[in-house]
Amino acid sequence: MTAYSQMDRAALVREQAAASARFEELKGQGLNLNMARGKPGRAQLDLVSEGLFKVFQKPEDFVSDGVDCRNYGELSGLPAARRLFAEILGCQPSQVFVGGNASLQLMYDTISKACTHGLLHSPRPWCREEKVKWLCPAPGYDRHFKVTESFGFELVTIPMTPDGPDMDAVEEAVKDPAVKGMWNVPKYSNPQGYLYSEETVRRIAALHPAAPDFLLMWDNAYCIHEFEGEFVPFPDILAECAKYGNADMPVEFASTSKITLPGAGIACMAASEANLAYLTKLMGIQIISYDKVNQQRHVLYLKDRARTLELMRRHAAIMAPKFRAVTDTLDREIAPLEIASWTHPKGGYFVSLDAMPGTAKRTLALCREAGVTMTGAGATFPYGVDPNDSNIRIAPSLPPVEELRSAVEVFCVCLRLAALEKLLAK
Amino acid sequence: MTAYSQMDRAALVREQAAASARFEELKGQGLNLNMARGKPGRAQLDLVSEGLFKVFQKPEDFVSDGVDCRNYGELSGLPAARRLFAEILGCQPSQVFVGGNASLQLMYDTISKACTHGLLHSPRPWCREEKVKWLCPAPGYDRHFKVTESFGFELVTIPMTPDGPDMDAVEEAVKDPAVKGMWNVPKYSNPQGYLYSEETVRRIAALHPAAPDFLLMWDNAYCIHEFEGEFVPFPDILAECAKYGNADMPVEFASTSKITLPGAGIACMAASEANLAYLTKLMGIQIISYDKVNQQRHVLYLKDRARTLELMRRHAAIMAPKFRAVTDTLDREIAPLEIASWTHPKGGYFVSLDAMPGTAKRTLALCREAGVTMTGAGATFPYGVDPNDSNIRIAPSLPPVEELRSAVEVFCVCLRLAALEKLLAK
Repeated sequence: MTAYSQMDRAALVREQAAASARFEELKGQGLNLNMARGKPGRAQLDLVSEGLFKVFQKPEDFVSDGVDCRNYGELSGLPAARRLFAEILGCQPSQVFVGGNASLQLMYDTISKACTHGLLHSPRPWCREEKVKWLCPAPGYDRHFKVTESFGFELVTIPMTPDGPDMDAVEEAVKDPAVKGMWNVPKYSNPQGYLYSEETVRRIAALHPAAPDFLLMWDNAYCIHEFEGEFVPFPDILAECAKYGNADMPVEFASTSKITLPGAGIACMAASEANLAYLTKLMGIQIISYDKVNQQRHVLYLKDRARTLELMRRHAAIMAPKFRAVTDTLDREIAPLEIASWTHPKGGYFVSLDAMPGTAKRTLALCREAGVTMTGAGATFPYGVDPNDSNIRIAPSLPPVEELRSAVEVFCVCLRLAALEKLLAK
Repeated sequence: MTAYSQMDRAALVREQAAASARFEELKGQGLNLNMARGKPGRAQLDLVSEGLFKVFQKPEDFVSDGVDCRNYGELSGLPAARRLFAEILGCQPSQVFVGGNASLQLMYDTISKACTHGLLHSPRPWCREEKVKWLCPAPGYDRHFKVTESFGFELVTIPMTPDGPDMDAVEEAVKDPAVKGMWNVPKYSNPQGYLYSEETVRRIAALHPAAPDFLLMWDNAYCIHEFEGEFVPFPDILAECAKYGNADMPVEFASTSKITLPGAGIACMAASEANLAYLTKLMGIQIISYDKVNQQRHVLYLKDRARTLELMRRHAAIMAPKFRAVTDTLDREIAPLEIASWTHPKGGYFVSLDAMPGTAKRTLALCREAGVTMTGAGATFPYGVDPNDSNIRIAPSLPPVEELRSAVEVFCVCLRLAALEKLLAK
């Protein structure tokens, strides 16, 4: 196998003929495979639901710290659920608010309330600001970007590095008082699987934003989601920010969507007590209380951090072979051709691949043609526009591993075809 | 027993001495009773949880219409859950969106999105309007009023009658283009337990609001919540409004909070398909999907409308004696004194009482002193201010019936004392 850049035109034409033939073969198999979303696979659902729905055995199981979880009340969540998340996140239970089934909803609601009511230190609701700008480390999570786009913010792209967002760019950007916040997935970033370095976290915590109500959105979605190697500790962002006088800057989010069940788990936000008191008062207008039966179900099932980490190792056993199927195949089939580069994460739900510039859309169109659905090209960038048309997010979790192998094979052939088309069009 | 208005001063003083003595006796019992909120009692929770948490027996139970309810997806809710609510509300499944555990959250989110994004027919987001006014039939539900107050709307009080809101006042008010919507609890209104008459519903459906995006909030919280007598049919507000060319005006809300469990049930909103498509697109930015496991749990447990109504009769058997304890005692102890009037509802969760003007706050302060908590005076009016200081909401559902009898006795004594203080101060 030779790098395409080393091949002459005739060799590239031969390679294209071979790749096309293989593409047609694969297309003929009538595949219908999905690597678009970070959805856990069936085996993971079964792993959890075996125990999760059997926790209520006797009437006392509905009572937690004297609270009947079946009735209204406890807007901030069951104390035991707050303790569980605090233990996992390394913060205080008094800093944790346990909500419904979706951390995205808590994120959206925080930003929505900033717009309609303002945050703790806002001079006015953001909807009364002339312009709101928002920092988006990219490639990043499309749903994050969509939330802030939906509220009409101007999205500012911040380049991502293997150590996290480019902090020189961030420090410069926050001098603008219109810059009101920033998205972060600090551990196993979506889509690269990068870990923010200690230095990055320190520089973020020590930021001096011009906006008094700068909102550091800290989506710790994959905080205990290793699928390879040992658990990697992470800093408590609330304590870090407090150290630098920024106690009210961060709001951290987490959920059990990929610990128990996606869409039927429990989610939380964590913030300074002052922040939480402010937000809880606003939340109390929106809802009487979240589903505490599901909170109690999770408390009884997960029990504590140690047993939750144990469960995560069983998820890892299902996830690791899928990620290996992706990266091994890419390493073997694509690396020698030098037409793309990709990450080799040890946790999270994604692999990020940079194809030859100008070929991402075409690659995914070919995939679709052959029955393989991937996250749309551009989705990892603000406004859905990748300036290089290069980044592709791969989500290997949903398909069983045999199906995944076929999907990755299709993907590799499409990468080759798109690159060859580009090279031969020159 | 004589009406206080017929008593001379000496008789009133004797009556006050007797009432004071009884008050002190009751106070001495160290009661701690709560009639503040429409919370179901323990017996109702037990009635439901016996079956609700045993529905998942085999792996297939997690699959509904081919959808694995444990994974992400189906933002609008499980088709079976949409069918169930449609059957109960008398509308089409395609008009139903099933959300999380709280209809209040869906109401808040609808109004919040009107503010930040605008509704289907909004010329602009409401946060860009100079002023938004909102119609509040009062006495009404304090949490409704709080939502619209929280967004800075000007609350306009509309008098309530036993047939529903004063429609002359409503028809006049909606001529103002700043009037953007109206709260409604059409069946067993909170707090009176009134049913909107056919004529009221017709006039509402036929409204000609000046605002093109007038939002008819139709909180059908107690649509099947009879505790006395037969089920009373109610009109499908979506069809009614469509008849008069107002298809996109209403958004209806309902939940199983008082069918299964408060705070752990499922909630829905129902609207025209055009409205629902618009709102669902906005909801899709906020959340990937709601808790479909809980939706499926409810589908398997409630099954259909007929069996749901059967369950409601078992709730009624628990609720009816509590309401009777309240109204029988009031009829016996207070009616002859002619110092208050109250409703005799056949469904819902409340009794509404009008005390002698100027005595509601004092009555409730006395209740608190004797260990009985009630909804704060004024809560049933916009901004929490009852211009007559008269209306009191009684919520008999939470305490067991024996405790309730003590609470009502305390309440009656406090009503008498407050009235006597007022009369003797003249």
